[in-house]
Amino acid sequence: MAATGADPMTSHPDFAPLLTAVHWNADGLVPAIAQDAGSGAVLMLAWMNREALALTLVERRAVYWSRSRQKLWRKGEESGHVQHLRDIRLDCDGDTLLLLVEQVGGIACHTGRPTCFFNGPTEGGWRILEEPR
Amino acid sequence: MAATGADPMTSHPDFAPLLTAVHWNADGLVPAIAQDAGSGAVLMLAWMNREALALTLVERRAVYWSRSRQKLWRKGEESGHVQHLRDIRLDCDGDTLLLLVEQVGGIACHTGRPTCFFNGPTEGGWRILEEPR
Repeated sequence: MAATGADPMTSHPDFAPLLTAVHWNADGLVPAIAQDAGSGAVLMLAWMNREALALTLVERRAVYWSRSRQKLWRKGEESGHVQHLRDIRLDCDGDTLLLLVEQVGGIACHTGRPTCFFNGPTEGGWRILEEPR
Repeated sequence: MAATGADPMTSHPDFAPLLTAVHWNADGLVPAIAQDAGSGAVLMLAWMNREALALTLVERRAVYWSRSRQKLWRKGEESGHVQHLRDIRLDCDGDTLLLLVEQVGGIACHTGRPTCFFNGPTEGGWRILEEPR
């Protein structure tokens, strides 16, 4: 695992071809879907920049780019709900990543729920289908 | 099923609360993840605008907004690989949708593969893990 301050691109040049092939958007980001490697549940969608993907590959845990905070976000850094990387996929267009993860604590959402996708449709609007654990 | 030219927002006002609650981005879009309702496989990520989501709810099939063609895209309209909507979820932040779909033909990707996420990491770059059917 690289030290936090290291440049993962230069310290791990083997990842350069993976980073180069991604079609980053105008903001230098791509969406990354996290899926539970065991259950197959879709846990969340977040964003990655080049450094976040490099760190994810180096550290074997999900590292995202927080658009609201404009900084790297090591998933679980505060909550402990780390996502260990089991595998990763790039889609046909090269502009979306799929992370297969082991979700520590079984809780991916900052609301304390297993998945962020807990709102289901009703006639009156979205309804919460699952309470926090 | 509404006629193609109908306004799904006015002809089906029950969906208005669902549409209003979504946090559309600056372009009026949100990412929508399609997951196979049976196998749990993540099939693809595409984008929806307000009309695409309304049509998806009305027609019970995935309708996306094609950013490259700047038009509505009824998934499968050319290939026949329609995605029948089984259920839908909105995430905690209200800015990502998860569609649970029945994938006609078992092929979601325009390349002829079951899923768009067929590139896996190797030392030399992304490698195709699955050939078209």
